[in-house]
Formats: sequence, structure tokens, C-alpha cells
Amino acid sequence: MLTKQSPLSGIHFLISQECFRLAVVQLQVTSVKADNLSRARRLVQQAAGQGSKVVLLPECFNSPYGTSFFSDYAEKIPGESTQMLSEAAKESQVYLVGGSIPEEDGGKLYNTCAVFGPGGEMILKHRKIHLFDINVPGKICFQESETLSPGNSLSTFDTPFCKVGVGICYDMRFAELAQVYSREGCQLLVYPGAFNMTTGPAHWELLQRGRAVDNQVYVATASPARDEAASYVAWGHSTVVNPWGEVISKAGAEETVIYADIDLQYLSDIRRQIPITAQRRDDLYSVTSVQEASG
Amino acid sequence: MLTKQSPLSGIHFLISQECFRLAVVQLQVTSVKADNLSRARRLVQQAAGQGSKVVLLPECFNSPYGTSFFSDYAEKIPGESTQMLSEAAKESQVYLVGGSIPEEDGGKLYNTCAVFGPGGEMILKHRKIHLFDINVPGKICFQESETLSPGNSLSTFDTPFCKVGVGICYDMRFAELAQVYSREGCQLLVYPGAFNMTTGPAHWELLQRGRAVDNQVYVATASPARDEAASYVAWGHSTVVNPWGEVISKAGAEETVIYADIDLQYLSDIRRQIPITAQRRDDLYSVTSVQEASG
Repeated sequence: MLTKQSPLSGIHFLISQECFRLAVVQLQVTSVKADNLSRARRLVQQAAGQGSKVVLLPECFNSPYGTSFFSDYAEKIPGESTQMLSEAAKESQVYLVGGSIPEEDGGKLYNTCAVFGPGGEMILKHRKIHLFDINVPGKICFQESETLSPGNSLSTFDTPFCKVGVGICYDMRFAELAQVYSREGCQLLVYPGAFNMTTGPAHWELLQRGRAVDNQVYVATASPARDEAASYVAWGHSTVVNPWGEVISKAGAEETVIYADIDLQYLSDIRRQIPITAQRRDDLYSVTSVQEASG
Repeated sequence: MLTKQSPLSGIHFLISQECFRLAVVQLQVTSVKADNLSRARRLVQQAAGQGSKVVLLPECFNSPYGTSFFSDYAEKIPGESTQMLSEAAKESQVYLVGGSIPEEDGGKLYNTCAVFGPGGEMILKHRKIHLFDINVPGKICFQESETLSPGNSLSTFDTPFCKVGVGICYDMRFAELAQVYSREGCQLLVYPGAFNMTTGPAHWELLQRGRAVDNQVYVATASPARDEAASYVAWGHSTVVNPWGEVISKAGAEETVIYADIDLQYLSDIRRQIPITAQRRDDLYSVTSVQEASG
């Protein structure tokens, strides 16, 4: 790998691959799908205009979040919303992690993240694998499994900058997913997510910082902006955490775009300083994807 | 399990097993071993006098922490320090997690935690399995492996209250250990540890809260009190975290004993409310102890 001191020509392109700009769009999601799509597209353009190479949208960005909405807003993939994502990625020349949308396929509904490359091609489809079924009495009860089916695959994609692992919201609670992704070489984990006013203040940032420090990776989350009038009130506070476990960028509750420069040299430095990735006791324990183990 | 409403006689004993008091002794460790031992013993008695059933001492409680000290302070097990621990556990009728001491065995040195039951019997010996070898330039460079050898076993012990998993300091950075322990039924994880003035503020509390929320267990750490004059300055801030990820008890930098009531009914409630322990996708990933896998 060329160093930043190298006098070689062409070095700017190579250097830039060690550091790239990530944008997180904290979209204000409304009940008007067309409005959600057009605003998302405009904010992707805005993010690209700030030099972003990877742009992340929130969970359920085309629809209000709630089991009563999923079937009404669900689409096939490809469909209206993913067509917009494809065009937005291409016109802005970015890797676009399309948050999630309710997807209909074969009579079932999924909470699905589609990822598009700068050529407009879909390069990944992740269906949320851990459905959000919780019941904290007097605070929050939600059962995604009333209407949604779970995905059955782990999901990573490659960029010229680094490999990226994808989970959706509740997927973040499961440390194993992040562990498998980082063992497979991901240096950035992205979680479109919509935590709520109970789990948000309690766990949203803690989980991200935990995933980052345990795996020495960058972690980014994209939440919808908070809508106090919605049936499900999202916490907001989209965040980017570095491999030292520090929050390096964080939104408030309102619609906004936040930015973070992802520095892969810094990531390498952290892994050399506290070399847990090389010190694991594989003779005593193992974390594996079952697909990998049986593959 | 009997409920708290049960009218049966003998219920007090059974109820008490769902909630028990844990004490963490944040000992001021000096270069005088005899003084460390006598003060530790007195503080264990003090903790027992406050109703504690499990008492936790810090890493390297009989010796200053540092590779230049380990061989001078090392002992066989049984030896002077563990003899004191045995007597202290018996006289105070507690489960005593004896922090750690430098142990000599077969010409090798280990960083070893011995655990004693209320009868004075040694019920566990955990040798630190992840040696603390880090180098953060200009901040902290430490290489335990210059003088110590690693242990090769995961370590849990049973009490009438719950099963307990044991790690020492740097062991806490490895999420897999906590995951295997909690899968084996541990509801409390204890880490005698001596983080420093760099890693302490950055990661000490984050790691504990992460282990707690990811596994929905109680986590307790015991640090030596801070000695600014020592070659290795410990962070202090011994802590207890509940399964919701909240710090429920925390020391400052000075010698002290902190207490926490470990409520296993609360732990069960959390696991029912956010049932991640039942929602894991064992069909997609697995975390196993290799001993277990090959056993």
C-alpha cells in the first residue's frame, strides 16, 4: 500500500481510498411516499455535493414505521422506491445504502435494505434477520413478526474503499452479526435503524460504541428524524462511531445530513495499538457464520 | 421457583436467592505484601458485615502491577495470599473472588484469580487467558507476555444464587468470553482489572456496559485504587452494571468498598422484555467454546 508520503503520480486517487467521506441522511419520514422519495433523493444529492462516497438512508425511509403501514407501503424489488435509489446512486455517483423499505415477495413482507453502486446497479439486498419483537411494559410493545418475515442471510458488500456489513435496526442488538462481518473483513458496519424513546436513550449509542470497540471498526446508524405525532416515535440521533469507540458525528432529532471521514489508516493504527483482532484465543472459542461453517 | 407471594415457610431463604448483595473491594495496593493482605482481609470482613454474599477483590491485589514485580511477588497456589483468601472467605462466610495474584507454577508465571467458597475451599482457579500486550504510542506500552504465560481455560463457578463467569482485566476486551459464559448460564460476570489512565477513560465503562447489555447479565469490575506514584497508574472506578446496561454502583479513584444488590428476577424481566437470548439466529451464526465444541 502506498503511503501518504509517496511521490508517485496517481497517488491522490490511491490516498483517497484510505479515507473517504460517509454521509448519513436523517430523513423526516411522512405518510406521503412520493414526498419521502423526492426528499431522500435531494438529500443524497446534497451529500454527494459535500464529497460523500457512501450515503446511508434510514430504516423504513419511504413509509411510516409500524405494522399497520407495512403492507400499504410495501413494494416489489425492483419497484418505485428502489428505482429512485438506483437513479440517485447513479446521478450522484455514490454507494447508496437505501435504508430499508417494506418489501413484498411471494406473498410475504420483509424489512429490506437495498444497496446500489455508483453505476446504479443493485449490489446487495439485506432482509432484516432479527425481527423487532419486544415488550417493555408501560413503555414500548412492538411485534414486527405480526406482519413481517425474517431474512435468512448475512449481507456484506465491497467498495473500492472497504468492505461494508449491513444490518437493520434490531439486528444491531446481536453482537454475533457484527463479529462475523468484521471477521470477514468489513471495516464499516451500517445499521439503518429506528430506535424509540425507550430503547433509544438506553441503548442506541451504547450498542454502536460497543460494536465499534469490540471489533475495531467504524459503525454508522441512520434513523428517521423524530416525529412526535407519529404512532412510533423514532429516537433520531443518527451516529457515526470510530474504531476507538468514540462518537465522531451525531445528529439531533431533526432532519439533517451528518458527515464523517472514514479513515482506514486510523483503523489500522488502532488495531496495531490494541491488537485484539490478532490476540483472540481461537483455541478456546469461536464465532462463525453457520453458512461459512457448512460451506 | 417459588414466588415472593408464596405463603410457604422457609420462603425467606428461597427469596433471598433471587437477590443477593455483591461487594467490590477497591483496594489501595502498596509494595508491602503483608499490608495488602491484611487490609484486603479487613475489607472483606467489612463487606460481609454489610450483608454481602459475594465479594470481589482487584487484579494483582497483593502486589504492585508491573512486569518487574510479578516474579518477586509470585506465589504457589496454595501459598500465603491464597491461604489468607481461604480464611477470609470462611470467617466471613462469603464467596470470595480473590482478584488476582502473580502465580508461579512449574517455572512459569501466571496472572491468576482464585475463588473460595464460604467453607474456605478453593472452588476455581482462573489464569488470565488474554495477556495484556498493547502499545499506544506516547500513552501506554505494556507487554505482560514478557514475563507471564497465558491460561488456557474458561472459568465459571456456581453459587446458590447464580452461576458466575470470571475473566481478568484484558479478558474483558474479548466479547466471546462473555458470550460463552452467558450461554453456559452465567448471570453475573466478574472482571478483576486494572485499566490505566489511557484505556480507563476510553473503554473501562463502555466494555462493561456492552458486555451487560449484549448478554443481559450483571457485570462487576474490581480495580485497585489509583496510586499516582506507581509505575502503572490504575484507573480505579470499580463498577457494577445491570442487565439493562446501567451503571448501578461505581467507585471513585480511592480505596473503598462499593455494593450492589444483584436482582435475578430483574434480570429475568429484562430477558423477557427484550428477548434477545431467545431470538438469536443459531441457524446463521454460532458462538461456541472450542472445548464445548470438541467435548
